[in-house]
Amino acid sequence: MRHFASDSAESSPVGVVDVARWEQYSLEDTLPFQAMWYTVPPDASSPQDCHPEVELSVVISGRAWVEASGNTTEVAPGSAFLLESEEAHVIHNRSGSDPLLVFTTYWMPREPVAAAAASAEATR
Amino acid sequence: MRHFASDSAESSPVGVVDVARWEQYSLEDTLPFQAMWYTVPPDASSPQDCHPEVELSVVISGRAWVEASGNTTEVAPGSAFLLESEEAHVIHNRSGSDPLLVFTTYWMPREPVAAAAASAEATR
Repeated sequence: MRHFASDSAESSPVGVVDVARWEQYSLEDTLPFQAMWYTVPPDASSPQDCHPEVELSVVISGRAWVEASGNTTEVAPGSAFLLESEEAHVIHNRSGSDPLLVFTTYWMPREPVAAAAASAEATR
Repeated sequence: MRHFASDSAESSPVGVVDVARWEQYSLEDTLPFQAMWYTVPPDASSPQDCHPEVELSVVISGRAWVEASGNTTEVAPGSAFLLESEEAHVIHNRSGSDPLLVFTTYWMPREPVAAAAASAEATR
């Protein structure tokens, strides 16, 4: 069993957001995803982000207001949100007092079955 | 963006533990892992579990006392623990008042590089 303490992880700022990337644990041969914790201070927002990786996040403490695809959704502690590949998103913390802590996993999307079949067909 | 609310997920008991499996969201073509939330009531413990899947868990609320490989480790909210394939484990909640909520991901381990090379060699 290995233990990863969120409060002693090495982190660095990305705008106002404090980011603790799991690369520090050298788990790339074990985990089928990359991971990080991030903290958004009260009354603050993450920089807009958009990337090819699919992203599944779980709110640990505080609340997230997730702005994506024209909507903003409030996500409570314990609940999760999934962002598609190339889906632009901003994470807002609208609380005036409580930091927002999120645990996030992300990975490159699998090639869709139809695309894989077409690709196999094309190489015959 | 999809939102998964932990407090409205369908769940069922496994011993004293309440388990909400993510199979209900039909994400098997999207996620490179399986997932669930589980809740251990105050002063209770999970049944001993042991399985081939590697398991990465994050404590959402409450505290986990993770018994594995002869040791018990206290894991605070926000922190994570990784259980190896076939590592027997029991999750204790030693709080007399607070439920323990955990978000868990699990997946079959990758074939080690050395074993994969030996396997490729054997089939030549």
